[in-house]
Amino acid sequence: MPKPRRDAATTPKTAAKVQLTPEDWLRAAEQVLVDKSIDGVRVDALSKDLGLTRGSFYWHFKDRDDLLRQLLQRWRDRATEQIIDRFERRNIKPRDLIRDLLKLPLHGENARKAASTELAIRAWARRDEMARHFVDEVDSKRQAYVAQCFSALGFDIPESRTRAFMLYAFLLAESLLAEDGGQSQHEERQQALESMLLRKLD
Amino acid sequence: MPKPRRDAATTPKTAAKVQLTPEDWLRAAEQVLVDKSIDGVRVDALSKDLGLTRGSFYWHFKDRDDLLRQLLQRWRDRATEQIIDRFERRNIKPRDLIRDLLKLPLHGENARKAASTELAIRAWARRDEMARHFVDEVDSKRQAYVAQCFSALGFDIPESRTRAFMLYAFLLAESLLAEDGGQSQHEERQQALESMLLRKLD
Repeated sequence: MPKPRRDAATTPKTAAKVQLTPEDWLRAAEQVLVDKSIDGVRVDALSKDLGLTRGSFYWHFKDRDDLLRQLLQRWRDRATEQIIDRFERRNIKPRDLIRDLLKLPLHGENARKAASTELAIRAWARRDEMARHFVDEVDSKRQAYVAQCFSALGFDIPESRTRAFMLYAFLLAESLLAEDGGQSQHEERQQALESMLLRKLD
Repeated sequence: MPKPRRDAATTPKTAAKVQLTPEDWLRAAEQVLVDKSIDGVRVDALSKDLGLTRGSFYWHFKDRDDLLRQLLQRWRDRATEQIIDRFERRNIKPRDLIRDLLKLPLHGENARKAASTELAIRAWARRDEMARHFVDEVDSKRQAYVAQCFSALGFDIPESRTRAFMLYAFLLAESLLAEDGGQSQHEERQQALESMLLRKLD
């Protein structure tokens, strides 16, 4: 991002305003959501944390609701991007895609952070209509992609849907539960599930 | 806990104090945890909500930490009770137990409330050592019971552990995800998983 040019006429306050992008506000809001809760995401508190006036907030957002909606949109786009990216790599066999999905990076700092954000959003969605809407959209989009994979392997629609649900449940659980048992148990589970999901039922 | 005796010298304020049990405080705290976040669970705010003085709080709890610990203990006991109860019903075949676990009531008002509480506790546990400890304990206790079931069916230890993880993942996902597809898809998934989990892998 190009930094705005400061000239003699720019007061320090105006300079601070234009140096922060909407993304900076969204990142700060997301951090408060994870560390506290959505109720902690307030224009006055955020402005204070960022050392800015409330006015600087309205430079970028219509109101608090606008910030919350953008926060959810940003999360949705990132949350589905990982799966969609995999689908758009051409020449990859459905079986490899499934193996690949089962290995989605679940640990490490970034994955942990993403999981914390997702969990905070899910908790928020249990009592907020707008958040619920985005969470449902993400859940069904991800499952639809996975189901498509199983269909490509020749499973019929209900079978594909069921298998997609299970693969998705596995990924949710891997990101929710503690890393007990560590890497070797994780791989053991992953292989067992792969083998179950790829087999035809009687 | 024996209730303190009320006599003529008891002021109305004292009467209000003794009419509330620790359970009343814990229930109120849990509601705040779900509706706001753990940061909202504060002695002053709770006392105000309950129309009592801060002093009445210290009648039952040493401090805020004591309240939080009891909140977690209460959740742990309830969260594992459901599974343990099933295990203690004698003369039930392991195969039926597994079927029974897959049908754990996941919807309805009480289940939804329990799921919201659990989700709020999981979100809290991502940034709090004490909460993490209780969540890990619950997750491993539930999985250990389920694994025991698979062992009783003749699966070896790694197979039982893997299957327990999957069954547990399924239950987590069913409680986390929206009820899309409704009852018929739920039953379809349940039957497919049951059939996968009870089959020996090559």
